Amino acid sequence: MRILVVGASGTIGQKVVETLKPSHEVLRAGRNGADVKVDIMSPDSITAMYKSIGHIDAVINASGGANFKTVSDLTPELNEKGVESKLKGQINLVLLGREYLNNGGSFTLTTGVMMDDPIPMGSSAAMANGGVKAFVKAAAIEMPRGIRINCVSPNIVQESWEKLGHLFAGFTPVSAERVARAYVKSVEGSQNGQNYEVY
Amino acid sequence: MRILVVGASGTIGQKVVETLKPSHEVLRAGRNGADVKVDIMSPDSITAMYKSIGHIDAVINASGGANFKTVSDLTPELNEKGVESKLKGQINLVLLGREYLNNGGSFTLTTGVMMDDPIPMGSSAAMANGGVKAFVKAAAIEMPRGIRINCVSPNIVQESWEKLGHLFAGFTPVSAERVARAYVKSVEGSQNGQNYEVY
Ligand SMILES: NC(=O)c1ccc[n+]([C@@H]2O[C@H](COP(=O)([O-])OP(=O)(O)OC[C@H]3O[C@@H](n4cnc5c(N)ncnc54)[C@H](OP(=O)(O)O)[C@@H]3O)[C@@H](O)[C@H]2O)c1
Ligand SMILES: NC(=O)c1ccc[n+]([C@@H]2O[C@H](COP(=O)([O-])OP(=O)(O)OC[C@H]3O[C@@H](n4cnc5c(N)ncnc54)[C@H](OP(=O)(O)O)[C@@H]3O)[C@@H](O)[C@H]2O)c1
Repeated sequence: MRILVVGASGTIGQKVVETLKPSHEVLRAGRNGADVKVDIMSPDSITAMYKSIGHIDAVINASGGANFKTVSDLTPELNEKGVESKLKGQINLVLLGREYLNNGGSFTLTTGVMMDDPIPMGSSAAMANGGVKAFVKAAAIEMPRGIRINCVSPNIVQESWEKLGHLFAGFTPVSAERVARAYVKSVEGSQNGQNYEVY
Repeated sequence: MRILVVGASGTIGQKVVETLKPSHEVLRAGRNGADVKVDIMSPDSITAMYKSIGHIDAVINASGGANFKTVSDLTPELNEKGVESKLKGQINLVLLGREYLNNGGSFTLTTGVMMDDPIPMGSSAAMANGGVKAFVKAAAIEMPRGIRINCVSPNIVQESWEKLGHLFAGFTPVSAERVARAYVKSVEGSQNGQNYEVY
């Protein structure tokens, strides 16, 4: 398959690329993408990316951010990053990419454990994760041309523990390799509307 | 208690007001609110509302919309109503209302069954519902001064069946009266971080 991976240079994206590469053509995207550049916060940039790469069989997104603030410090302005990037960025990859997907293709987005097992300062990211999960479940029942859509909800990843572990007290991290396999299940399998919890 | 009900003139809001009125002071809000006017899509309007009413014990929101479109017809632009109204509108009622809530007060937002039991044309509303549910669950663990936050997820309401029933084939509607009791449970009870499924 011809597979677009947005966020290909990230902790999770790298493992996803490494896992898919032996059997697929992988296009690596990101703001500084090795194969194609895209900023998922800009619909114009998303459209330009799809135009430049043409038809594909799968889109994986492993990018998207949100601000980490306690709910007492969170403002509508600070909440915007989560809305524009992790939420709308991911959904716009679907809405603007639909027509570039071959029949029977798939979208795989990324949510995260903190929507199910809340952490301090996580309400904005949780909001985005929950929005993506519900969108995926609802969109799945009416995607055209046999196109499927799923998301992967990673636990805190071992490789991110040093940087992020202080926010995840008492969590048991999972390997990026195990997380990457959930994206493979979504792309190479036949399930639809799932949120794969890699906890 | 002194309770603000946004969306007080709506199908659900009316029943909520009717149920709370015998034992509380209820302030009815909406774009054409009987007691105070607010457009939840505008942060300035939300702030002006809170400034005009002063301190309160509870905020209930039973307003917020989204466009109903198949995922094939949904565009980033059409998705904006759900983002700005049902999602950000509700969250901004919390972020901008925090300081006006008395110690031990509560926020109660509204989600909906379609995030759990998807219907055609429901992906944008589901996205907003899922975002609000996850925000509530995450924000609940760190609300200041004993303030609680919950949401109510109504099934399709009997009183809305004539207008909306065609979208909810095979669903068994619930009465607005039963839905209203979930808001009472949130306000008068002590639970926190719940999404009350009135299915
Ligand atoms: N790591 C974890 O433990 C963990 C756990 C649960 C969920 N997640 C979620 O998984 C996703 C990936 O996490 P990660 O830790 O692998 O991230 P990461 O290491 O920070 O990598 C982010 C990747 O996304 C790209 N990117 C960032 N902003 C972008 C934008 N606006 N447009 C396009 N590409 C962009 C980056 O490349 P450029 O800089 O070139 O754009 C990079 O390739 C995120 O949504 C994160 O919330 C991560
Ligand atoms: N009815 C159902 O079966 C059902 C089922 C599940 C979930 N829900 C959810 O429950 C909520 C209420 O539903 P409903 O059927 O009761 O709605 P409704 O009858 O259409 O009433 C909406 C209420 O919200 C107010 N409103 C609308 N837009 C507003 C805005 N931008 N700012 C402030 N107030 C606004 C309206 O008053 P003004 O016109 O004066 O602004 C009205 O009081 C919605 O979020 C809906 O999605 C409803």
